[in-house]
Amino acid sequence: MSSKPSIPKGTRDFSTEEMLKREYIFETIKQVFKLYGYQPIETPAIENLTTLLGKYGEEGDKLLFRILNSGDFLSSVSDDGLAKREYAKLSSIICEKGLRYDLTVPFARYVVQHRDEIVFPFKRYQIQPVWRADRPQKGRYREFFQCDVDVIGSDSLLNELELIQIIDQVFESLKVGIQIKINNRKILAGIAEFAGIPERITDITVALDKYEKIGWDNVKVELQSKGINSKSISDIESIINVIRLTNPKKLIFLRRILMDFPIGLEGIKELEELFHLLEKGNINASIVFDLTLARGLNYYTGAIIEVKSADINIGSICGGGRYDNLTGIFGLPGVSGVGVSFGADRIYDVMDQLSLFDVDNSSSTDVLLLNFGEAETEYGLRILGILRNFKVRAELYPDQSKLKKQMSYAVSKNIPYIIIAGEDEIKENNITIKTMSSEEQKTIPLDELGSFVNKVIKKS
Amino acid sequence: MSSKPSIPKGTRDFSTEEMLKREYIFETIKQVFKLYGYQPIETPAIENLTTLLGKYGEEGDKLLFRILNSGDFLSSVSDDGLAKREYAKLSSIICEKGLRYDLTVPFARYVVQHRDEIVFPFKRYQIQPVWRADRPQKGRYREFFQCDVDVIGSDSLLNELELIQIIDQVFESLKVGIQIKINNRKILAGIAEFAGIPERITDITVALDKYEKIGWDNVKVELQSKGINSKSISDIESIINVIRLTNPKKLIFLRRILMDFPIGLEGIKELEELFHLLEKGNINASIVFDLTLARGLNYYTGAIIEVKSADINIGSICGGGRYDNLTGIFGLPGVSGVGVSFGADRIYDVMDQLSLFDVDNSSSTDVLLLNFGEAETEYGLRILGILRNFKVRAELYPDQSKLKKQMSYAVSKNIPYIIIAGEDEIKENNITIKTMSSEEQKTIPLDELGSFVNKVIKKS
Repeated sequence: MSSKPSIPKGTRDFSTEEMLKREYIFETIKQVFKLYGYQPIETPAIENLTTLLGKYGEEGDKLLFRILNSGDFLSSVSDDGLAKREYAKLSSIICEKGLRYDLTVPFARYVVQHRDEIVFPFKRYQIQPVWRADRPQKGRYREFFQCDVDVIGSDSLLNELELIQIIDQVFESLKVGIQIKINNRKILAGIAEFAGIPERITDITVALDKYEKIGWDNVKVELQSKGINSKSISDIESIINVIRLTNPKKLIFLRRILMDFPIGLEGIKELEELFHLLEKGNINASIVFDLTLARGLNYYTGAIIEVKSADINIGSICGGGRYDNLTGIFGLPGVSGVGVSFGADRIYDVMDQLSLFDVDNSSSTDVLLLNFGEAETEYGLRILGILRNFKVRAELYPDQSKLKKQMSYAVSKNIPYIIIAGEDEIKENNITIKTMSSEEQKTIPLDELGSFVNKVIKKS
Repeated sequence: MSSKPSIPKGTRDFSTEEMLKREYIFETIKQVFKLYGYQPIETPAIENLTTLLGKYGEEGDKLLFRILNSGDFLSSVSDDGLAKREYAKLSSIICEKGLRYDLTVPFARYVVQHRDEIVFPFKRYQIQPVWRADRPQKGRYREFFQCDVDVIGSDSLLNELELIQIIDQVFESLKVGIQIKINNRKILAGIAEFAGIPERITDITVALDKYEKIGWDNVKVELQSKGINSKSISDIESIINVIRLTNPKKLIFLRRILMDFPIGLEGIKELEELFHLLEKGNINASIVFDLTLARGLNYYTGAIIEVKSADINIGSICGGGRYDNLTGIFGLPGVSGVGVSFGADRIYDVMDQLSLFDVDNSSSTDVLLLNFGEAETEYGLRILGILRNFKVRAELYPDQSKLKKQMSYAVSKNIPYIIIAGEDEIKENNITIKTMSSEEQKTIPLDELGSFVNKVIKKS
């Protein structure tokens, strides 16, 4: 026999048990999204590479899965082009399409493409898989699901509040303890100006983002390696010392330091207003202002939000922020949006490790009817019809196997009730019902099946 | 401004309205699958090409979307290999992965890979997109959804009955009128033997499958073009004349013709038994035995099932059959299975053309709270909190725009209730509720919001 088939590295099959747990997460998230007036859309898995390329930085371009053109994909490649073996260049000629890398860029593309049909502010959610040719490792997959919720076409901070309320309610419903971190990109811009190097904001934020993980000394080394001078570094350090202070004090101190830098002051003002709104917003989760929070993606322009599990160290389980010009890259400038993305796979891992799933979920058939053979089939089909009319999930064991085998099937599938309808039962127009948990077995007239369903099965 | 961005040919965006209609179809199908004891699994979109190639015939191999290997995909291609420009050969070297083409082959791969964790008979359903590099045309997409339901590890005809019951119940729930056609691959094999050319069964069935569409004369031309001799063709014709007879007579006549061909007789026996079971199975849809029904895929070995809309001419909207050796290709022989696949996209088109969707579905927010400005925000947030506690989908218009604009947002989103909570209302601890359908407006104490929700909103 040949060796077992397998699936590509970084991809996964989901068993029924995993599916039910995942559906519980998706369903909970969807219900909260809907409660806040968000509506679903979906976009295709395959996008034109022109839509995707250049949107995720140089590193992101490398992580895109590209789809080979159909037919003779070499037809428009010159002999010279082939001989040179410039694979990166060649890949753009032989591939026109790629798999989506996230849901944000396809969403921006959607908004621009369908702008005449959309009512703004446009509140949408989208739950779909994305693909990244990343090195697979624990908790990082090449195919994984994102649950995005965004509102576009409004710059009110009420939207930021609403998203944080959604985060709070989703994790409360899932019983996952969290900490929410917030920051504002404009404050980071102010810091870069304060340090005299506004043009280096990307290098600064990329390094700062690692502060929690690697500490200031290593951030310093990274800044030095990027060629940032020691005067600027010590300016940044003086601000980073703020991190030891409590929330309100941080902002007072920052306001003083950044008083000559309007962009920084604007960020502080936005953050203060947001904290003010949050006080009225009935949030249960703890929220901290984290000056080093930057998140990799360059398109954020205002609030930055990140959520971590309070109990499991697995990185961010939800994050997002405000982007003032995401649709600009597709020719529709001046539309501000804000959104967050829930990482369903990491949330799953957190819940699994904390045993937060209700395992009873895993049974999905209520009643198994044992198979005694052809003569009993007609009676059995009648019983099944009655059960299904009552919306009871029921199945007849398809083969006339030994009863031991049929019973062990019921046990493995965690089916709580067995119905026995053999020769004796049929003669008397009865059925015998066995409750698996108590091993109790009783024979009742077929007529009473409906009332058994209502009194016992539907209540269990 | 640059031109509008677009998506690849044959792919689609789904708006909220389309999503709600699609979710209605998926949800209905899922509920029926569960009622019959089937459980969900999912497999990755990306499979190894070794899993997919050779499973769908030569034509199918060409329609697979292949994913370019990451990094220097040319590294293992020789100069000579490049210079020769043999693109088909090259594509197998530079691509190791592809997008799934259907859900059946990945399911077979899943069963073999996870056979130690699976309890047989294994009843699973799977609802996921598939991709084919087909020429896009009306009703045919490059990315579309399949809803598959299969049972594997049992050769009882009760499974065929169950699948037909599922088909019947799904389309009855969706209110789509259908005709179910059935045939048996073994009868087709018997016909090929009767015609003296058992080895040509594929050519015969491919041609016969077009009978309904192109008529006998054209089928004859196709058979001739495949080099089938006129004696065999006239043998086939004599059997095809059976088609004009009614169901029971067809089988009596066929039994006589095929009496010397055991495989054919076995097919007839299976079909008779299935019809016998179907009589007891409470099926509402009309079921016909169609001798020319073959379906393209070669892996069917027993029953063949196909469903057409009774009202719209759009091709098959559901189909499947029994396969005795699907897992054999992955090294696990001797496991019989049977399954059908619902074509969600075509079912959508049929329902849309017949106006079978309940359009009220398209509203997804119950209440819009108008935005009067900062001073009113705190009171507004309280109202939102109450509504959401009552599971009422509610939103506050995020910007302090002109009331006309806010109202037109409510109209476009089809929101049935507006809440007005301005200075006057706040002073008296009241709210004003406007019912959009009747234009009726009334002011009530905030305390009574809960009872308004229960008496009016939840009933509407």
